[in-house]
Amino acid sequence: MFHRVAIVGVGLIGGSLGMALRQKRLAEEVIGVGRRPEALTRAVELGAIDRFETSLVTGVQGADLIVLATPVPQILTDIERLSPLLDENAIVTDVGSTKRDIVQLGERFLPRAFVGSHPMAGSEKAGVDAGRADLFENAVWVVTPTDATPSAKADKIVALGVAVGSRIVRLDPEAHDRAVAVTSHLPHVLAFALAALAGERSQVEPQLFDLAAGSFASGTRVARSSPELWRDICIANRDALADALRAYRDELDLSLTCLESADPEALLSVFRRGHDSVVGR
Amino acid sequence: MFHRVAIVGVGLIGGSLGMALRQKRLAEEVIGVGRRPEALTRAVELGAIDRFETSLVTGVQGADLIVLATPVPQILTDIERLSPLLDENAIVTDVGSTKRDIVQLGERFLPRAFVGSHPMAGSEKAGVDAGRADLFENAVWVVTPTDATPSAKADKIVALGVAVGSRIVRLDPEAHDRAVAVTSHLPHVLAFALAALAGERSQVEPQLFDLAAGSFASGTRVARSSPELWRDICIANRDALADALRAYRDELDLSLTCLESADPEALLSVFRRGHDSVVGR
Repeated sequence: MFHRVAIVGVGLIGGSLGMALRQKRLAEEVIGVGRRPEALTRAVELGAIDRFETSLVTGVQGADLIVLATPVPQILTDIERLSPLLDENAIVTDVGSTKRDIVQLGERFLPRAFVGSHPMAGSEKAGVDAGRADLFENAVWVVTPTDATPSAKADKIVALGVAVGSRIVRLDPEAHDRAVAVTSHLPHVLAFALAALAGERSQVEPQLFDLAAGSFASGTRVARSSPELWRDICIANRDALADALRAYRDELDLSLTCLESADPEALLSVFRRGHDSVVGR
Repeated sequence: MFHRVAIVGVGLIGGSLGMALRQKRLAEEVIGVGRRPEALTRAVELGAIDRFETSLVTGVQGADLIVLATPVPQILTDIERLSPLLDENAIVTDVGSTKRDIVQLGERFLPRAFVGSHPMAGSEKAGVDAGRADLFENAVWVVTPTDATPSAKADKIVALGVAVGSRIVRLDPEAHDRAVAVTSHLPHVLAFALAALAGERSQVEPQLFDLAAGSFASGTRVARSSPELWRDICIANRDALADALRAYRDELDLSLTCLESADPEALLSVFRRGHDSVVGR
């Protein structure tokens, strides 16, 4: 499928993609590009990449596919830096959790090469040690071509997602960002806030964490994720996320009003609306 | 440990307790008390109870332990109804998710018999078919004796919790309610609200649920729970829960302000506070 793939950022997603590419023989050679030789050496040991380079310039040389798999701010920087380095036929894609800003920059600096994408296979784990060749199986892989995206290159990224077992969803970048604001970024904000509140309350109620129910464990699971990573994602998608957060606050205010006025019927209808949204899907 | 145990309400918790009592031979006889003979017949088939009665009066006759395992409003009703029916040595306990109102009523109507407790082993599943004899193993079992509770009877409930494998936490009823408002009831309100918001947004963004990440699945897991059951619990604990919900809204407003002002450093410190509250615990 590919001759030489350069993966920039060999963490959970980049590393897992390398493992999948190598195990399924989808590329003749997988080059890891990163800053820390120790992490890259580990990625070679784990079978995520064939070899590595610590310079972007040499790392992407001769690659027909370049996958940007660093945190979002670094993806934005690397798109600019890649501009003078590309072969004409090369495809550049990314795995960033937000798409509007990345795709805008990609179309500006890599107009005939860039295809935005977002394999939704992250977890609260990080690093190539958590990588798995089957990470993308049954995951959703969003591809966000626009009118300016070369369609043959978009199709190649679709084929890559299919080849590693993902289900492809095509969306425009802004629709992607509005959707993930609700289905991914907002849940992280909620989890960090719940964990923070519990931490604060545990100062005055020392047994509070002893009473952590399964619902608390689920509700704070992703608060174990990297605060830096999620800060970057949330800032990159701040418009759509702030909009979702305001709408969410309105939902909470409905419940609060029902509790303050001790209105069981109204509270039931609030809960039922939530219940019916997810049950049977 | 017990001669005859009457379990009023043979659902997930009541049924699992019956299974544990019978498998561990902690009671000579376990009687299920309920309204629906079909469900009680199923409970006999599943080994949760030895036999059943559909009348509270005959069901609790001769029982030295009575466990109230119905939803909270029914527990409150049954405490009043039990008042004239008890043997002097009988112990009455409950498994309700809130304790202040239940313990107050227990001390009023069953002053020498009642011991409040709350085995924290519920899940989004319901009914005796989801019951398991090992449901209480490694769960927290809160016992809420007050100055008015006969200490020998409180100790017997502690011993019951230990015998089924739980870790005992002793708390006063109001401290229990404040803690579970944050660690159990609030996470349910948040999950119902997130599910409701997603349901609403999916009307205009039809592919929204396709983009549901693992964080969304965790954040809405308990929205699959019974809206009626959680309405009852939240109304019963409305004071502590409304207080927790207001504090939570303040936490969210911090994140929202950071997003609206595009302040990455402040957002990072909000996320970090949540992260550090749960990691390493």
